[in-house]
Amino acid sequence: MTNASDFHAFGIGIASHSQAGAMLDCYFPAPRKQAGPAELSWLQQHGKAATTTADAVTALAAQTDDQALAKALRALAEQDAPLVLCALPEDGPIASTAEAYLKLHLLSHRQARPNTLNLDGIFANLPNVVWTQTGPVATEDFESRQIAARLRGEPLDVLAIDKFPKMTNYVIPAGVRIADSSRVRLGAYLGDGTTVMHEGFINFNAGALGPNMVEGRLSQGVVMGANSDLGGGSSTMGTLSGGGEMRITIGEQCLIGANAGTGIPLGDRCTIEAGLYITAGTPVLLIDGDNPEGQPIKARALAGESDLLFIRNGRTGTVECRTNRRAIELNAALHAHN
Amino acid sequence: MTNASDFHAFGIGIASHSQAGAMLDCYFPAPRKQAGPAELSWLQQHGKAATTTADAVTALAAQTDDQALAKALRALAEQDAPLVLCALPEDGPIASTAEAYLKLHLLSHRQARPNTLNLDGIFANLPNVVWTQTGPVATEDFESRQIAARLRGEPLDVLAIDKFPKMTNYVIPAGVRIADSSRVRLGAYLGDGTTVMHEGFINFNAGALGPNMVEGRLSQGVVMGANSDLGGGSSTMGTLSGGGEMRITIGEQCLIGANAGTGIPLGDRCTIEAGLYITAGTPVLLIDGDNPEGQPIKARALAGESDLLFIRNGRTGTVECRTNRRAIELNAALHAHN
Amino acid sequence: MTNASDFHAFGIGIASHSQAGAMLDCYFPAPRKQAGPAELSWLQQHGKAATTTADAVTALAAQTDDQALAKALRALAEQDAPLVLCALPEDGPIASTAEAYLKLHLLSHRQARPNTLNLDGIFANLPNVVWTQTGPVATEDFESRQIAARLRGEPLDVLAIDKFPKMTNYVIPAGVRIADSSRVRLGAYLGDGTTVMHEGFINFNAGALGPNMVEGRLSQGVVMGANSDLGGGSSTMGTLSGGGEMRITIGEQCLIGANAGTGIPLGDRCTIEAGLYITAGTPVLLIDGDNPEGQPIKARALAGESDLLFIRNGRTGTVECRTNRRAIELNAALHAHN
Repeated sequence: MTNASDFHAFGIGIASHSQAGAMLDCYFPAPRKQAGPAELSWLQQHGKAATTTADAVTALAAQTDDQALAKALRALAEQDAPLVLCALPEDGPIASTAEAYLKLHLLSHRQARPNTLNLDGIFANLPNVVWTQTGPVATEDFESRQIAARLRGEPLDVLAIDKFPKMTNYVIPAGVRIADSSRVRLGAYLGDGTTVMHEGFINFNAGALGPNMVEGRLSQGVVMGANSDLGGGSSTMGTLSGGGEMRITIGEQCLIGANAGTGIPLGDRCTIEAGLYITAGTPVLLIDGDNPEGQPIKARALAGESDLLFIRNGRTGTVECRTNRRAIELNAALHAHN
Repeated sequence: MTNASDFHAFGIGIASHSQAGAMLDCYFPAPRKQAGPAELSWLQQHGKAATTTADAVTALAAQTDDQALAKALRALAEQDAPLVLCALPEDGPIASTAEAYLKLHLLSHRQARPNTLNLDGIFANLPNVVWTQTGPVATEDFESRQIAARLRGEPLDVLAIDKFPKMTNYVIPAGVRIADSSRVRLGAYLGDGTTVMHEGFINFNAGALGPNMVEGRLSQGVVMGANSDLGGGSSTMGTLSGGGEMRITIGEQCLIGANAGTGIPLGDRCTIEAGLYITAGTPVLLIDGDNPEGQPIKARALAGESDLLFIRNGRTGTVECRTNRRAIELNAALHAHN
Repeated sequence: MTNASDFHAFGIGIASHSQAGAMLDCYFPAPRKQAGPAELSWLQQHGKAATTTADAVTALAAQTDDQALAKALRALAEQDAPLVLCALPEDGPIASTAEAYLKLHLLSHRQARPNTLNLDGIFANLPNVVWTQTGPVATEDFESRQIAARLRGEPLDVLAIDKFPKMTNYVIPAGVRIADSSRVRLGAYLGDGTTVMHEGFINFNAGALGPNMVEGRLSQGVVMGANSDLGGGSSTMGTLSGGGEMRITIGEQCLIGANAGTGIPLGDRCTIEAGLYITAGTPVLLIDGDNPEGQPIKARALAGESDLLFIRNGRTGTVECRTNRRAIELNAALHAHN
């Protein structure tokens, strides 16, 4: 978790509500994990309330040195309507829908890396929402809305029914490409230079530090280092999905082949060949200078090691792990050209 | 197929049409597989017609004991426009677009389980439609509509060109989450407590009885029992996709690993390890109390059996089937937290 | 590349621009790779300009023998606004956004097959765009647009952030079904009778000549012949994705199984069993009339050969290649029924 001194988060934004008044989502265009002096002073006056006004927001825009924040605040104050305010002096468990959305925004705005924020209580505080092309709708409001919409000849198009919305409708980080936005949840961390292709997927509290090519799936909690590639349809086991106790990480300059997968964390410069799935319990023949004939081990013994090449020998069917002799020189053109 | 006594289906809804007047789709908010006494009496008077009126629908809303039906009918009668009526006294072959849509609605409304309705003729009676964010458009009408829309600066966004629409624009069953609605076709059956993650897919006339975690693909005709998990990118062979003659089912408390697949039906408490694809013809070494050394068989000999664990031995490359010693205690938290 | 005599491409269309005036995309409803006599004469007068007028376009509509072109031109001239004109007397490197869009349109309109057009410079000339349900938005314009939209209660839904848009918003080729339009990029080639299921994917400058069932991924540069099937989740290596120097092609009547993959080109009537990934370096035991005991080779030695069946022996773990004894009679019903 974050040091107390590193954390004094706040966000000012726009919420949607159900017909009964429950908050469905909240959009914070410039959330901050730490408050500067002007923001702290403003929060001292306003921070306890759950809403704020265009006037108060305009005042903060005039005081802050944070130009991006000021720009967003001025845009939010364009209309004289109540705005959501969420201030978190500490990184405690999540206690409201606004807090859940604020922390998810912090991750996607690169204010905090995955696995560094306290996300306890997030599921309990995120309502399940019907996401349509015209915005969120409460599940209990949906049928009557859809019937009325269709009678008008304007059917509602439903994008998802989920607790988590897609990231792009809230945050578009600089320097990324996302070929199909439905594959990246709010709360995903995409570093500069990250491309998520159509088959890529990034869950909340997971991410690619960038630059990366993501054509496979990053499960909740999984983080991938710079210049690593996740091949088409490849898989990383999440701790929530039966992957067991080990948290998966992928180091730098790794290459997970198409349709491959890993259930162990990998160090730097590791390769798993296309189509091969390594789990913690996979028996592996370790072949290196010390073991020219090969030493039988379980894959979990190699967790976190660097410079490994995993293949399944096509002649014998044995899963082998060799020192990775192929220098993985990720071609910058590859990142530019997909 | 359904017993005659169990079946007297009907739906009242709203249709879209092409410029030439052909029906493109039909939305039935409260379809029923069986008609109660009030509904039967009303159908005797109105059921032969293909359309009905707001007045007639209001009358039925006043007579029925089915409160959910009454609520939907009152919403449909809000506008004084003709409504589609589709009544099927028998479960015969599909003879019209409205009938096809009614049967697909019955499946997704959990009025009928997959493989229990007569779907003969469904492809012939479903037009191929351009699905846009503003509703269905006939393929022959599309180009002129798109040019006009773009001249206005409001381009049409095309979601799909297909005979089957996505389920969520017609039916949102209670107690489900669907992370990407484009992955579930109308006619899918999602039991209470089913979560379909981004990589999950459920075809029409296929389903998860719930609760289930679906991160893989359920082909047409495939049904999955309670508390089973389909791992990310996993595959089930459909009879329409070259899977041959065997209809695939997955019992209760099964776990199909990520990027794995099955071409044989599975009983209860079966596991296929991540990355392993079992087809009917796969040679398998069956290892159990009777065969401690292993008995070579074909996977099809194990079709429908329970308590099996399939792995590919990482040392020898042999596909092995063992009695599943891992108690598959599917963590309720897992279903809540993904 | 195309013979000079085969090429004199042009398109007349509608562009979107950023607030600063940069072109974001361009829609050409009836692009042509070759200009007929009337078109050539019209282009001699107008072809050097980057824009044209409704009057000039109406004149061309009256002169041309190409009825589909005339129809599109009349629709474009409905409104008296400037239209984009892009004429390419030669197939040179791409030098503008309009040229990039014109060539991508030519591919998707089946005016040119993949790997026959000069696409040099395409990445440099395609801006990265925020694609929303209401059209393209420049990345630098997005945040203020989103804040204003949300203050109005009409949030922008972002479909993608990418250089390439999805094909269907520009081109809907005759005789195709695409179950999820986000999986087909503009510049994909889909022959008549091609169905792309939810898990299928076709990149720009890649394609299925038709008829085909595409439930796997066709990487950039990959072309698939008639009556071949790409199983669910299957993969083809692209030259841009670490696949190396070999350009992948798939011949006619091939079947790539679910979750399988190929890193070598295949001739006709080849099968790769479900779950098996063949790369150029995979050791394979070739078993045929000349080698009843099997001859060990590398898969790359079989590149482009026909009538091959690849399996991994479930008993020994060995990758085997046999003469494909299964007559692959692709059932026409399969194509009609998925």
